[in-house]
Amino acid sequence: MEHRLIEETILSIPPLDEKTQTKARHHVDNLTKPLGALGRLEEVVVRLAGMTGEIIPVIDRKMTVVMCGDHGVVEEGVSAYPGDVTALMIQNFSRGKAAVNVLSRQFGADVRVVDVGSRLEEAPPDVWVRKVRSGTANMAVGPAMTREEAEQAVKIGIDVAKQLKEEGVQLVATGEMGIGNTTAASALAAVFTEREVSEVVGRGSGLDDTGLERKCRVVKEALRVNRPDPRDPLDALAKVGGLELAGLAGLVLGAASERLPIVVDGFIATAAALTAVRMAPAAREYLLASHLSQEPAHGWLLAELRLVPLIQAGMRLGEGSGAVLTFPLLDGAVATAREMATFADLGL
Amino acid sequence: MEHRLIEETILSIPPLDEKTQTKARHHVDNLTKPLGALGRLEEVVVRLAGMTGEIIPVIDRKMTVVMCGDHGVVEEGVSAYPGDVTALMIQNFSRGKAAVNVLSRQFGADVRVVDVGSRLEEAPPDVWVRKVRSGTANMAVGPAMTREEAEQAVKIGIDVAKQLKEEGVQLVATGEMGIGNTTAASALAAVFTEREVSEVVGRGSGLDDTGLERKCRVVKEALRVNRPDPRDPLDALAKVGGLELAGLAGLVLGAASERLPIVVDGFIATAAALTAVRMAPAAREYLLASHLSQEPAHGWLLAELRLVPLIQAGMRLGEGSGAVLTFPLLDGAVATAREMATFADLGL
Repeated sequence: MEHRLIEETILSIPPLDEKTQTKARHHVDNLTKPLGALGRLEEVVVRLAGMTGEIIPVIDRKMTVVMCGDHGVVEEGVSAYPGDVTALMIQNFSRGKAAVNVLSRQFGADVRVVDVGSRLEEAPPDVWVRKVRSGTANMAVGPAMTREEAEQAVKIGIDVAKQLKEEGVQLVATGEMGIGNTTAASALAAVFTEREVSEVVGRGSGLDDTGLERKCRVVKEALRVNRPDPRDPLDALAKVGGLELAGLAGLVLGAASERLPIVVDGFIATAAALTAVRMAPAAREYLLASHLSQEPAHGWLLAELRLVPLIQAGMRLGEGSGAVLTFPLLDGAVATAREMATFADLGL
Repeated sequence: MEHRLIEETILSIPPLDEKTQTKARHHVDNLTKPLGALGRLEEVVVRLAGMTGEIIPVIDRKMTVVMCGDHGVVEEGVSAYPGDVTALMIQNFSRGKAAVNVLSRQFGADVRVVDVGSRLEEAPPDVWVRKVRSGTANMAVGPAMTREEAEQAVKIGIDVAKQLKEEGVQLVATGEMGIGNTTAASALAAVFTEREVSEVVGRGSGLDDTGLERKCRVVKEALRVNRPDPRDPLDALAKVGGLELAGLAGLVLGAASERLPIVVDGFIATAAALTAVRMAPAAREYLLASHLSQEPAHGWLLAELRLVPLIQAGMRLGEGSGAVLTFPLLDGAVATAREMATFADLGL
């Protein structure tokens, strides 16, 4: 049973509720505005209706999940920051002082930090420690982790999603922290989009030209050494992914199976979401894009997922910050559906 | 004195406070995130600091101003909606049931509806009636209004801005309502960007292909008949603008002179803002872009103003809806500056 959790979760993802979607579309079309004038806000309402089964969806209880993990590949010099920063940022999250905390507070969301595989030894008590291992191995010389470890991280994500559902959470944002994880996300992007490595590697948290070149070489080397199978997402996750990426992929699968709408953050979170959708295409229906990151490959990952972001602010912070920033826009969209007059109300 | 209100307002627009901007930039650079990782949110904080003179700007008291006016050119069949809808929507605003009311409530802003020139005879008591005339004349056969009338509408906008400042308002959104006003905005866009009419005319509230073609012809005819002078923004406003557009241009001038940040809505509001900036280039510094509308010329107007929108949601509703939707993003930006830890706090 435990062994088959991933498979069973995938099989239990329901299709969208089309009847409710049609009713929501009808309702939105009768509001006092030109047909379609609220653009993608209308699409948000209709899609949320299909996910939740409610004509006017309720998304009051929001949770930002920040999955954390360390990356062995950092020893290749692929990040502008040292690996220790992952642990420092976990502590910062716990103190409520990082961008994702500030934005979550501002927009009425809670933050859950899940340590799936950082090198932090003693996590603050409010952090959920579900550590598969203390950081991945260096993917430039071998697989980042075993297939079993990747599976375990995916299952942790599924469990977190199920727990959120039990707590009454109605909207989930996918966040992450892990120095080195744009390198892993770029490798996954290369695997799943079949683009050149040079097209999917960006400056991450702020590499200079030399660093960027090195990062490209490292990703190429990781792909050459590991030969991840694009038709086997778990294989790719294990070989060139990361623990927090696998955790987020699981979170997407679990949330979709529970009909929980998922707001996908930037490049790394989108790489994880695409991995989940390669495992379970039905999961795609439960995803909402948030912002377009400054990482060059983010747009391609979103295009693969047929998602269009609402915000273009040149952000590249991760943590879930861009997803959380989208929360009020979703609230605003739902509020128009709930509170606007219809043309009938105006006697037209 | 009254006669010279416009000129004096223009002359009194102060430059941004560069010292405070530098301090704000320094503060933002020390927050626990990679340099620049919050992208345009950082720029928002720094620009707001320059406008307000506060390192951590306070933008709690927000006001959405909806300027309303009717357009004689509607008799040419340039809108998908009849002219009566302007009056109906003013009543809808007053009842708090339009999109702009819902979004303003959602994001903690008040709404002020100013009737600068609709055909509504008895406005609800909460509407500020500052009517210059009951709708413009048909610009396809002659000037929309006299130069004196345009001046009067601009002065009304300046007065509204000064009143907002007295009330303690800290952030203003520019909204409008006026069936036919994308036609006027397209004419102004053609005048100020020197683009072909066919490039600056869009479907407004939902024209079909025949309607779109007709609207192009009407704008061309209006420009041919009136010959508005691109170097004389008041001349353009009077001949091919509109009363609510002139009111909004005045609002921009007045707000800038009071160091009040102005969030510019979509195509029509941006045409008004560009008109104001042509009158007073210094006013540009007090503008913040909100969203990119579905109207094809909106992006060009924003480019003329060197503004980049934060939201791309394919909206085309007006009323100030897109500007208001940006309020929480601005609040979020300011919250990060106010509440995030610095690297020094983390012992780095």
